[in-house]
Amino acid sequence: MQYSVEINVMPLKELLDPQGKAVEHGLHNLGFDASNVRIGKHMTFKIEATSKEEAIAKVDEACKKLLHNQVMEYYEFVVSE
Amino acid sequence: MQYSVEINVMPLKELLDPQGKAVEHGLHNLGFDASNVRIGKHMTFKIEATSKEEAIAKVDEACKKLLHNQVMEYYEFVVSE
Repeated sequence: MQYSVEINVMPLKELLDPQGKAVEHGLHNLGFDASNVRIGKHMTFKIEATSKEEAIAKVDEACKKLLHNQVMEYYEFVVSE
Repeated sequence: MQYSVEINVMPLKELLDPQGKAVEHGLHNLGFDASNVRIGKHMTFKIEATSKEEAIAKVDEACKKLLHNQVMEYYEFVVSE
């Protein structure tokens, strides 16, 4: 069966996020009172698996092996049918 | 009041996503049967507003003015307290 996957890969909370800081400045310049801006990646795809549990295990493995850099990022994901 | 905002900025569905294609190849090489990989940006921040409606209006304006490139991307967002 095919499952839909949504993954967010974000910079670790302890680390500075220069891209987020730049966007925060941009938002202030436009008059928006934004704070704590963090920018990461959003990935969506379909994956083949026999059960939702298998799909979750596969996605977790894919995140660990390829999709996130554990030195600088953390990930969270949702798998749906 | 302060509201939490989560925004996804994704490449338009009609457009090719070279980064997504590269990741799709990578996933296949690792043995994952993934398809239709799309990669965009995930942004989170806090924003000051007097009501949820005002927060939503502000975020929509910020997306239009700064956060997304309407030629190549679309956005979706969630505002929560």
